Amino acid sequence: MKIVRFLPPGKDAPLYGVLKEGGIIATIVASPFEGMIVETSEEYDEDACSLLAPCVPTKVVAVGLNYKDHAQELGMEVPEEPLIFLKPPSSVIGHGQSIVCPGVSQQVEYEAELAVVMGKKAKDVVAADAADYVLGYTCLNDVTARDLQKKDVQFTRSKSFDTFCPIGPWIETRLDPSSVQVRSFVNGEKRQDSNTSQLVHPVNKLIEFISSIMTLEPGDVIATGTPFGVGRIQPGDEVTVEVEGIGRLVNPVS
Amino acid sequence: MKIVRFLPPGKDAPLYGVLKEGGIIATIVASPFEGMIVETSEEYDEDACSLLAPCVPTKVVAVGLNYKDHAQELGMEVPEEPLIFLKPPSSVIGHGQSIVCPGVSQQVEYEAELAVVMGKKAKDVVAADAADYVLGYTCLNDVTARDLQKKDVQFTRSKSFDTFCPIGPWIETRLDPSSVQVRSFVNGEKRQDSNTSQLVHPVNKLIEFISSIMTLEPGDVIATGTPFGVGRIQPGDEVTVEVEGIGRLVNPVS
Repeated sequence: MKIVRFLPPGKDAPLYGVLKEGGIIATIVASPFEGMIVETSEEYDEDACSLLAPCVPTKVVAVGLNYKDHAQELGMEVPEEPLIFLKPPSSVIGHGQSIVCPGVSQQVEYEAELAVVMGKKAKDVVAADAADYVLGYTCLNDVTARDLQKKDVQFTRSKSFDTFCPIGPWIETRLDPSSVQVRSFVNGEKRQDSNTSQLVHPVNKLIEFISSIMTLEPGDVIATGTPFGVGRIQPGDEVTVEVEGIGRLVNPVS
Repeated sequence: MKIVRFLPPGKDAPLYGVLKEGGIIATIVASPFEGMIVETSEEYDEDACSLLAPCVPTKVVAVGLNYKDHAQELGMEVPEEPLIFLKPPSSVIGHGQSIVCPGVSQQVEYEAELAVVMGKKAKDVVAADAADYVLGYTCLNDVTARDLQKKDVQFTRSKSFDTFCPIGPWIETRLDPSSVQVRSFVNGEKRQDSNTSQLVHPVNKLIEFISSIMTLEPGDVIATGTPFGVGRIQPGDEVTVEVEGIGRLVNPVS
């Protein structure tokens, strides 16, 4: 099932819905984070709606250096335990919204990632139970000002600019995250192409590790790391993150 | 004016109020982040209420190494620009709530700080206008698992455990933050004692810098950094952060 958050035509209050065959969005009762997902008879044509980021996280917990080949390209060691950092809610945008390059950076880069969307409050969850706490999966672009990342050592500034966390286009609730292809494209040209089977720390282990530190709330997002092949984007580019079994998150750069 | 967020006796829905002489809390119309603060005739005895963290931040932006003497004690350089990191909303607790030491760390430490509470949405604010976007100031304890901070290099894990961000006891709306004493005490014994006049980057410059990166929302918190004298706390301790002109934030350690 594909869960979307969207603005119906002419409205400014976001709704949650299910995207169905033929581009029809059926709204749902309450939010997908409150129990059963029940469709209503209120339907919209997807083309007439604006898709938004499919959830409103209280935090985005990201994992650094979680593909060996990406750690190598940055000249860094793969950490024994997951290396986590946070992206603020203010950095989140949806499918189709513009990534804005800040003047202070000369090197803004894309990072294609599989993202986990939590469905329930999770604290001290063991890996074997982790899937029970997940609503679904989406695509995420962990946009990074690489020059500032290198200068600051701490990752926060370089990854926290407004618009630096595109998420979407929807949450796919039926996905086995253990082996799906993760790709990125700039202006249609393939740049990254790896598989989540290459993750140093897989999804269930990440949920165990992160929830041992902090309580995850419904709608919170875990960005599972990016593979080899990161590179620059510039105003005028269009960047796509594709995760097999989910879809394509496309954002222009301005 | 001292703004509190609290649970009235026997209730589980938090209210905002103004703490007045004689320990009386007058509730206010709406939240303090929605225009004028107007008291109602509904009053409570402070002793009968539970104080909560005085705001519900979407993010806590903290500043590292912002007092020269603290950078020296950690053996680190004072950065030219503010060094920022994030603490998640899930780490926030209020006055009187327990700081829980996680089993994974052998070295949990207090860090007394002056905190800024934003009153309005702020993006690209210049230092000269920064005060217009501030609701007030409070005390903050940037609790840190020092051993994990050193191991990880990235600050996130060491500063993001649940309960690692005590804030309170209230928001003081009338304070000049340019020269107030910042102190900490463990079991009544003074451990830190400095003054915000020693900040490398003062409050108005921090707001300018941070809001050039990310949009600050009403209720968001900026932790301005800690001075020399950080040290360990252990279960059974009681730790106090005192900021002159605001009050004392006291938390037991468990």
